[in-house]
Amino acid sequence: MTVQETSYRIAIVGATGVVGQEMIRQLEKSRVPVASLKLLASERSRGKMLHFRGEPYTVEVADPSVFSSVDVVLMSAGSSTARALAPEAARRGAIVIDNSSAFRMEEDVPLVVPEVNPEALATHRGIIANPNCSTIQMVVALKPLALRYGLKRVVVSTYQAVSGAGAGAVHQLQSELEAAQRGETVEPSYLPVASLNVKYPIVDNVLPQIDRFETNGFTFEEMKMIRETQKILDAPELEIAATCVRVPVTVGHSESVYVELGRELDDMDEVMETLRAQEGLVLWDDPSVQKFPTPHLVRGENEVYVGRVRRDLYRANGLHLWIVADNLVKGAAGNAVQILEKLIDNDLL
Amino acid sequence: MTVQETSYRIAIVGATGVVGQEMIRQLEKSRVPVASLKLLASERSRGKMLHFRGEPYTVEVADPSVFSSVDVVLMSAGSSTARALAPEAARRGAIVIDNSSAFRMEEDVPLVVPEVNPEALATHRGIIANPNCSTIQMVVALKPLALRYGLKRVVVSTYQAVSGAGAGAVHQLQSELEAAQRGETVEPSYLPVASLNVKYPIVDNVLPQIDRFETNGFTFEEMKMIRETQKILDAPELEIAATCVRVPVTVGHSESVYVELGRELDDMDEVMETLRAQEGLVLWDDPSVQKFPTPHLVRGENEVYVGRVRRDLYRANGLHLWIVADNLVKGAAGNAVQILEKLIDNDLL
Repeated sequence: MTVQETSYRIAIVGATGVVGQEMIRQLEKSRVPVASLKLLASERSRGKMLHFRGEPYTVEVADPSVFSSVDVVLMSAGSSTARALAPEAARRGAIVIDNSSAFRMEEDVPLVVPEVNPEALATHRGIIANPNCSTIQMVVALKPLALRYGLKRVVVSTYQAVSGAGAGAVHQLQSELEAAQRGETVEPSYLPVASLNVKYPIVDNVLPQIDRFETNGFTFEEMKMIRETQKILDAPELEIAATCVRVPVTVGHSESVYVELGRELDDMDEVMETLRAQEGLVLWDDPSVQKFPTPHLVRGENEVYVGRVRRDLYRANGLHLWIVADNLVKGAAGNAVQILEKLIDNDLL
Repeated sequence: MTVQETSYRIAIVGATGVVGQEMIRQLEKSRVPVASLKLLASERSRGKMLHFRGEPYTVEVADPSVFSSVDVVLMSAGSSTARALAPEAARRGAIVIDNSSAFRMEEDVPLVVPEVNPEALATHRGIIANPNCSTIQMVVALKPLALRYGLKRVVVSTYQAVSGAGAGAVHQLQSELEAAQRGETVEPSYLPVASLNVKYPIVDNVLPQIDRFETNGFTFEEMKMIRETQKILDAPELEIAATCVRVPVTVGHSESVYVELGRELDDMDEVMETLRAQEGLVLWDDPSVQKFPTPHLVRGENEVYVGRVRRDLYRANGLHLWIVADNLVKGAAGNAVQILEKLIDNDLL
């Protein structure tokens, strides 16, 4: 950790959202010296009062002119808001760390998980993209395997929490749970995709749709996992397949991952050691005492937890993993603040 | 459908359990001519009153002597009870359709899904095994693909309902839900495995353990999916990998399945047609209207629902499927009664 002389003027856009509020908490807990803080949101939240390190802050409307007096913008709004606001902030000299999917695949935008590809930060041109939640936790586990063994193929099925879809989805889950306890049902209002017509209950259910469908039959969420993982690992040819599924869990994404490595595994202790050595990864794996990560375990944590590590029964280069992380912390706000810390450490602000 | 002259003396062992009660309902709905019915359970349930086709039946203790006056035993007790009772019943001339894992892998015991391998019934020697719930629904979808394209590899991740673990697991889910609505928590009492020490909450959680761990790092449930699928499809060399996960759903197992076929797919319409033609399978798949199966959809149904069918993006012989079925009906009681119907149709009783 380097000693910082400077402190920074920070803005959080989307401060009243599920991820925005977690950004406030993560910034509070971070070692970022904060000179000033602006909490920004849409017109609807104007005047709302939030707190940062014990002090009250009034939510302001996210107007481009605000960015003139800001060094760093942590942005967690929708993609369309991000497309409108992030370039305005960058033009005014602020550095934007954006949580939306708007810029992730743009060539001159670094897509960064600090424990995985911090080197990508050096080339930033004002906008840095925070990856998709389900991508972040997967690449933290894949990176050390890629370095030691090489990667040929990844097949992942996810168990994603509703908070990943925003406050509306959490509200749907809660409303359905309350109704169920009264012996009633309520019409689903939000999931699987807020902007689409068909709605499904999430209580007592699982939904194999996250985000809209693309023409190839995969959902946009699945394609995000594929494309973003390739970009972050700098492995454009890596064969990835994903099935993304929403489960009735508020916080904590889980992933069942099958990996085909570049060479045969002859030593599982070496695999374990390789995973254990990865920064930001906690190996939580002991079948003899039923030890494996679950969403309950990881809440509030910035680490990625890995368990159920086992060799495939048929392919000597095949490995199975179970990867769990807090989708709001490591999957969003925590990773964004970590990017900010890394920018400071590397003198890139 | 053949016209039946004969009617049959039937016993249900484990009649008070989650699957046993579903067996009663499935038998009620079936076209099996029932001459007499005995509802059997352990000492604890003696004297309990249950109903079949409107008539009351008193639960008796499952004593071997009872089987002397019975033609068919539908058995849904634990493996150890099955090991004790099934041979006794078979010795007395009854045919046992057993839902436990006790006999499934024995060479002279047919392991049968009637739409998939009815021919195996012909060789029975008194005991027929009902496969594991998660296996049954998968093989219904794999069979037509195996016939048309051949199968090289299967990688499955499951989303399994708590009812698959019995009434105690359903009770744990309900207790936790009620406590959560009061803002309280209760100690988990049952899951992931009733007989093991470590317990985990299931509400707001997912558990990557179903049944005990084997020494290879896979759980017994995962190994059941692997070995039983190989036996049912008569494909001992088929490379299968499974990760079995419990989700907070009462009824309805879902599966994310990746298949590598014996040859390249050049025509997805043909794949759809192949699936649609399979008996007992409903293709429920249209991304343009967000149509895919969920646990809510399949409850009470004996069909296996398949959606999210799409070609892999990298492997021309790779296919992804989402398979959902009612684990108590098609995954247990419904399949057992279907076996009985098939035995009658094929004059094998």
